Amino acid sequence: MNMSKATTNPGPARGPVDHEVRDQIVVAATEHFRLYGYEKTTVSDLAKAIGFSKAYIYKFFESKQAIGELICANCLHEIETDVRAAVDGVDRPPEKLRRMFKTGVESCLRLFFEDRKLYDIAASAATERWEAVRAFEERIQAMLQDILRQGRETEEFERKTPLDETATAIYLVIRPYLNPLLLQHSFDSADDAPSQLSNLVLRSLSP
Amino acid sequence: MNMSKATTNPGPARGPVDHEVRDQIVVAATEHFRLYGYEKTTVSDLAKAIGFSKAYIYKFFESKQAIGELICANCLHEIETDVRAAVDGVDRPPEKLRRMFKTGVESCLRLFFEDRKLYDIAASAATERWEAVRAFEERIQAMLQDILRQGRETEEFERKTPLDETATAIYLVIRPYLNPLLLQHSFDSADDAPSQLSNLVLRSLSP
Repeated sequence: MNMSKATTNPGPARGPVDHEVRDQIVVAATEHFRLYGYEKTTVSDLAKAIGFSKAYIYKFFESKQAIGELICANCLHEIETDVRAAVDGVDRPPEKLRRMFKTGVESCLRLFFEDRKLYDIAASAATERWEAVRAFEERIQAMLQDILRQGRETEEFERKTPLDETATAIYLVIRPYLNPLLLQHSFDSADDAPSQLSNLVLRSLSP
Repeated sequence: MNMSKATTNPGPARGPVDHEVRDQIVVAATEHFRLYGYEKTTVSDLAKAIGFSKAYIYKFFESKQAIGELICANCLHEIETDVRAAVDGVDRPPEKLRRMFKTGVESCLRLFFEDRKLYDIAASAATERWEAVRAFEERIQAMLQDILRQGRETEEFERKTPLDETATAIYLVIRPYLNPLLLQHSFDSADDAPSQLSNLVLRSLSP
C-alpha cells in the first residue's frame, strides 16, 4: 500500500523544480528568438544555445509553439499591465478611456516593434489565434466594459445603447492598434490615431 | 523643316492603337494572375500566355508591377463605383454613411477575396503604398467629407468638431475594412462590423 508514495515522492535529489526549468528555457528562448527570429529557429537550435538536450526541452514544452505561446502571453501580460496601470491612475471614466487607447497603442508598438525579431511570434500568435491572444482580447474587452459601466453610473456616458453593443463597437475601433498584425499596417496613423479615435468614441458616448 | 512631321505621324499601317494593346495585355494578365497568382508569374510567363514577345510587352509596361498597378487600380475603381452608387441611391446623410460602410466592406470582400489569387496584387499594392491605393484612399475621404458637409447643412450632424478632424477619425474607423491587408485579419468581424461601426459613428455625429 506504500507504492503510490514511492512514485509520487520527488525525493531530495530531484534538482530544480519544474517551473524553474520552464522559466530558464523561456528566458533563453526569448533571447534566442530576439537575435535570430522565431520562424527560423528550431528546437534543436534552442537546445544547443541553452546547453540542454532536445529531449530535455521536450519534457517541459511539447513544441516550439508552446514556448512561443508562453513568450507571447508574457508580452500581452505586459501590455495589459501597462494599460491597467494607466486606466487606474485616473478617476473619471472619459479620461480612463483616453488612456486605454493611448497606452494600449504605445505599449503594443514598443513591445512588438522594438524587438523586430520577436515580431514573428506575435504575427504567428495573431494569425493562428493562439489562446493567449484570445484571452488578452477578452480581458481588454472586460476592462472596457468596466469603464463604460462606471461612466454610465456617473452619467458621463449615455445609457440608451445596450452596454455590450457599445463595448463591442469600441473594441472594433481600437483593435487595429492592439493587434500586431494590423498595427504593422497602421504605422502612418499610429501617432495620431489614439487621440483622434478616442475623441470620436467619446463624442459617441456623450449623454 | 518637315522632319518633325515624319517622326510624329503614326501612319496608316500602324496596327492597333496603344490603349487597345494595353487593354489586351491587362485582360490577359488579369486572367493569368487569377489562375497562377501574381507573385509567382514573370513577364516571360505572361508573354508566353498572351502570345506576345516579352520585348513587345515591355513597350507598353515598364514592369510586371506596372501591369499589377493597373489591375489594382481597376479593382479599386470598381469598389469606388459600388460605394458611390450606394451613397447616391439615398438622400439622407446618415443613411449615406451607413451605406458607405456596408457597401465598401462588401465590395472589398468580394473583389479581393473571391479571387484569392488576385489577392497578392492587393497585398503588394497596400504594402508598398502604390499610387492607385493612395488615390483611392483620397477619393473615399473626399466622399466622406461630402457626406459630412451635407449632414451639417441639414443639421443632422453636429458642427462643433472641425470637419477634417471628424472626417479623418471616421476614415480611421472604416480603413481596416477597406484595406485588403487589414481586412484579411478582420474576417471574424466583417459581417457585423459595418453596422456596429456606423452606429457608433452616427452616435458620435449626433448634434
